[in-house]
Amino acid sequence: MNLKIAVLPGDGIGPEVILQAKKALYAIGEVYNHEFVFEEALMGAVAIDKTGTPLPEQTLNLCLNTDAVLLGAIGDPKYDNNPNAKVRPEQGLLKLRKELGLFANIRPIKPYKALIEASPLKREIIEGADFTIFRELTGGAYFGAKTLNEEGTHASDLCEYSEEEITRIAHLAFKSAQKRRKKLTMVDKANVLETSRLWRKVVQKVSENYPDVKLDFLFVDNAAMQLILNPKQFDVILTENLFGDILSDEASVITGSIGLLPSVSLGEKNALFEPIHGSYPQAKGKNIANPIASILAAALLLEHFGLTKEANVIYKAVEKAIEYKVVTVDLKPDSKFGTNEVGEFVSNFI
Amino acid sequence: MNLKIAVLPGDGIGPEVILQAKKALYAIGEVYNHEFVFEEALMGAVAIDKTGTPLPEQTLNLCLNTDAVLLGAIGDPKYDNNPNAKVRPEQGLLKLRKELGLFANIRPIKPYKALIEASPLKREIIEGADFTIFRELTGGAYFGAKTLNEEGTHASDLCEYSEEEITRIAHLAFKSAQKRRKKLTMVDKANVLETSRLWRKVVQKVSENYPDVKLDFLFVDNAAMQLILNPKQFDVILTENLFGDILSDEASVITGSIGLLPSVSLGEKNALFEPIHGSYPQAKGKNIANPIASILAAALLLEHFGLTKEANVIYKAVEKAIEYKVVTVDLKPDSKFGTNEVGEFVSNFI
Ligand SMILES: CC(C)[C@H](C(=O)O)[C@@H](O)C(=O)O
Ligand SMILES: CC(C)[C@H](C(=O)O)[C@@H](O)C(=O)O
Repeated sequence: MNLKIAVLPGDGIGPEVILQAKKALYAIGEVYNHEFVFEEALMGAVAIDKTGTPLPEQTLNLCLNTDAVLLGAIGDPKYDNNPNAKVRPEQGLLKLRKELGLFANIRPIKPYKALIEASPLKREIIEGADFTIFRELTGGAYFGAKTLNEEGTHASDLCEYSEEEITRIAHLAFKSAQKRRKKLTMVDKANVLETSRLWRKVVQKVSENYPDVKLDFLFVDNAAMQLILNPKQFDVILTENLFGDILSDEASVITGSIGLLPSVSLGEKNALFEPIHGSYPQAKGKNIANPIASILAAALLLEHFGLTKEANVIYKAVEKAIEYKVVTVDLKPDSKFGTNEVGEFVSNFI
Repeated sequence: MNLKIAVLPGDGIGPEVILQAKKALYAIGEVYNHEFVFEEALMGAVAIDKTGTPLPEQTLNLCLNTDAVLLGAIGDPKYDNNPNAKVRPEQGLLKLRKELGLFANIRPIKPYKALIEASPLKREIIEGADFTIFRELTGGAYFGAKTLNEEGTHASDLCEYSEEEITRIAHLAFKSAQKRRKKLTMVDKANVLETSRLWRKVVQKVSENYPDVKLDFLFVDNAAMQLILNPKQFDVILTENLFGDILSDEASVITGSIGLLPSVSLGEKNALFEPIHGSYPQAKGKNIANPIASILAAALLLEHFGLTKEANVIYKAVEKAIEYKVVTVDLKPDSKFGTNEVGEFVSNFI
């Protein structure tokens, strides 16, 4: 297979972890006779520094015209604590999601056997947990109108949703549930928010097409609690953009480290693969960042194009790395292995 | 001391748990020579059933003219899954918060020694955790304009904040931090939301008055993760309404049961005390609901009026109940004690 992949290493640890993902893909290409062509482009703070804008036209065009996008991480603290910054790295990511129409972000959560002890949760709580979060990615408060009055004393964010936006991701989530344990939990705040009530209504309607899937509802405050009290109750979780952002980071604790979790963002035509962690600027250049999430993002990419066998080799390699404790310090505080060594192990295994 | 207390038992298990809180207050009154006069009123689904409205005028007037409000819980599933319901129990609670100007909801989180094992989190993660969440309670998406178009295909919620709203709760939170470990963590989503950027700016400004308090910032997705990974890092958490709703329910897992956590909501003139759990309709009338959160809400009420000694007696009584395992099934699955027995134990101890 020939694939053209846009690579956006981004900020902080992005470049170092993405390098390991590329190494894994190269190795797969060699062994299984595929041609993966990578084209790198700028996005995030690094793009602001070099071009003044977080998503240069060129980057967007590249992403629109490749088979898939592989993203590192974006974000830089110099913008975070400056409420007056006019340009921000995150704007690049949000614009990219919107322009590529990546409406569904999918995050699978399942602890590794060898890492059960790395979680802050007790073994009996997490052992056997296995669920997927479907987060709507191009709507809600992320994209609604924002205001700040002239005096800078009053601000607003508008959260908006349409039936169409809800319907398309709901279908994806129900289809996924059909292939899994046939349970879908919709998370919202329908006792307070009008958008949540629309979500409930639309999801109920969509559910009529999937009579074999059991649908239930949880308020987001309760869901944030249930994820920790009893994560095994979940199969597919469906929720809006901001709730999905919060709950999926929270759910990462089940696996022991956010450094293990990849996600895929899907649109009608495009797909983007990334680790769910951020740019972790404190670790930049120190060879301590966990590359596994990025490597697994590459595996999701392979799966997406039907290269299941190849993806499974990566999963296997990652499992072995974990089993042999070739992992970074987030998983083993006294580990002598770094980003590079973990990446090497995985690509050598392939 | 003479106190006139409005009691709103509300829905589901509200009435049964509030009864135990009243019993504790009666006992305190007798032993320490205070006169607590309780006046009950309707709010929530029960008020809708009897009067057509979730917060009858009479209830509001009573609350405006008493020293404090003691609330059980509100909410009824028959409204939750009906996106078209015109009147909802929650509207009563939100209106009450607004009319009483209860802008700050304060939730202390600290695990009981005897209950460390009841938490889904490992002992080493939670032992020693001790923090308080300050949640803004009368602003944000809870109270902004809501729209639903005529076709019912598009909905919106507006999240709004003003400098003034942020300033007043920030002062409370900083003052609390000064009396504690002098650390305040502001939780927001300033990389995406305009309101969050306003929060950051205003809180930075307010912080200049409290140079002895260390201020830091966390994005809400990261905060949801950090609460579980390392809850001991927190002292005072300050956040907006919806984030506070999510994070404080999530944080309840640290104590093993949401049935243990009270909260106080403060305004310029009024104060409301309640358990943080919901109306738990499945348990209604079964004598299985945990009354401790409500009893502790009564203790917070006493503290609020300077009756520290009396409040401490209640804390002590609750600790003893837990130590002697006179607790409900949420804390001890094979317990033979119910709501009443736990309440009896506490008031007898006084
Ligand atoms: C960087 C930020 C804008 C982003 C988000 O909130 O969507 C990140 O947290 C994520 O989850 O991908
Ligand atoms: C019942 C509901 C409206 C309420 C809220 O979201 O504020 C509850 O969850 C709470 O936290 O007090």
